[in-house]
Amino acid sequence: MRLYAYYRSSAAYRVRIALGLKGLAAEIRPVDIAANEQASDEFRRRNPQGLVPVLETDSGACLSQSVAILEWLEETAPDPALYPRTSLERARYRALCQHIASDIHPLNNLRVLRYLGGPLGQSQDAINTWYAHWITLGFTALEQEVIAWRGAYSLGELPGMFEVMLVPQLYNARRFSVATESFPALVDLDARCAELPAFRAAHPHRQPDTPEELRGVS
Amino acid sequence: MRLYAYYRSSAAYRVRIALGLKGLAAEIRPVDIAANEQASDEFRRRNPQGLVPVLETDSGACLSQSVAILEWLEETAPDPALYPRTSLERARYRALCQHIASDIHPLNNLRVLRYLGGPLGQSQDAINTWYAHWITLGFTALEQEVIAWRGAYSLGELPGMFEVMLVPQLYNARRFSVATESFPALVDLDARCAELPAFRAAHPHRQPDTPEELRGVS
Repeated sequence: MRLYAYYRSSAAYRVRIALGLKGLAAEIRPVDIAANEQASDEFRRRNPQGLVPVLETDSGACLSQSVAILEWLEETAPDPALYPRTSLERARYRALCQHIASDIHPLNNLRVLRYLGGPLGQSQDAINTWYAHWITLGFTALEQEVIAWRGAYSLGELPGMFEVMLVPQLYNARRFSVATESFPALVDLDARCAELPAFRAAHPHRQPDTPEELRGVS
Repeated sequence: MRLYAYYRSSAAYRVRIALGLKGLAAEIRPVDIAANEQASDEFRRRNPQGLVPVLETDSGACLSQSVAILEWLEETAPDPALYPRTSLERARYRALCQHIASDIHPLNNLRVLRYLGGPLGQSQDAINTWYAHWITLGFTALEQEVIAWRGAYSLGELPGMFEVMLVPQLYNARRFSVATESFPALVDLDARCAELPAFRAAHPHRQPDTPEELRGVS
């Protein structure tokens, strides 16, 4: 498989973690979003929407939208499972994942930040406040959920899709200097994940297109 | 089952359509978002995130996040299926659904519009332009997808989760006077859905909390 990705795209980061947790290998093909390469005709043949990540399967099919890719991975490579076992548990668990995928991440996308700074004429300070606002709102609710857990990870002994979503979102929070001290349970969970090979290998600072100055910086 | 909903919340609208397509009944319990009732302690006992919809199952479990609820419905009431049959088809199909659920809808939420008008001091004109921008960007890509279909609906003879997502988004587009003439395939698909009982019954203007002046207006 090939994963078309950008080192610090959090949607691509999610897919890298999930591939790792499932023990699947994919060759990383960098797409330079800073240079708008995702809007090129060549890339749009793989994803007409012009967004990373795209996972090209062994059969040559190009899959887009990280949430759809994650569901596909769970269906086609079910072991280890990244969701709980019963439908009811899965529904509650998917709600936590969607909390990040629908209510936090889309508001902090690069294209959104560019719109705030461009057409809406917002200062970098105002953009940073916006960024922190949606993360803080979402993390406040998620912190309470994680505090109530009994195990070390969302699936007890193992991490699952929740960590696949959370870890990239925490990386983003730090990148934009959002205060994370108010979320000790999320920060601790993130630290436990950072010890695991799948999360280490997926980190934005260990990708083929990671800029030299960020290489290996955790 | 009970569905805690607001007549024009598009996430609640999605769940109403899916329940109807699956032939499932749920008692509608209105939550007055205009009066911030979703932030009340009573409602937060059902969903700590303070967002509609919440689906209370027959066993009393409270499910939140429309995408998670839709996946639960598909798992627990699989007939009729609202997704295609193979994993690969489902992955591509879920990507179209996520295109609406992640890339359009979250940017046009009431809480986001309130932030634009409040802390960012944007005029109603600027807010409307923002609203139209994200819808137009998303619909432009989706229009090409729908043009390429052979059948009347996303699943051929039948509508599925794509229509569950699209129809509420088109309702929103019209409410904010977004020009839809450029998307004839989406508009035609929406018109075909409007003829079906599940879509008719789910319409925001046919709910217990629909204001008098909107009742029955299509």
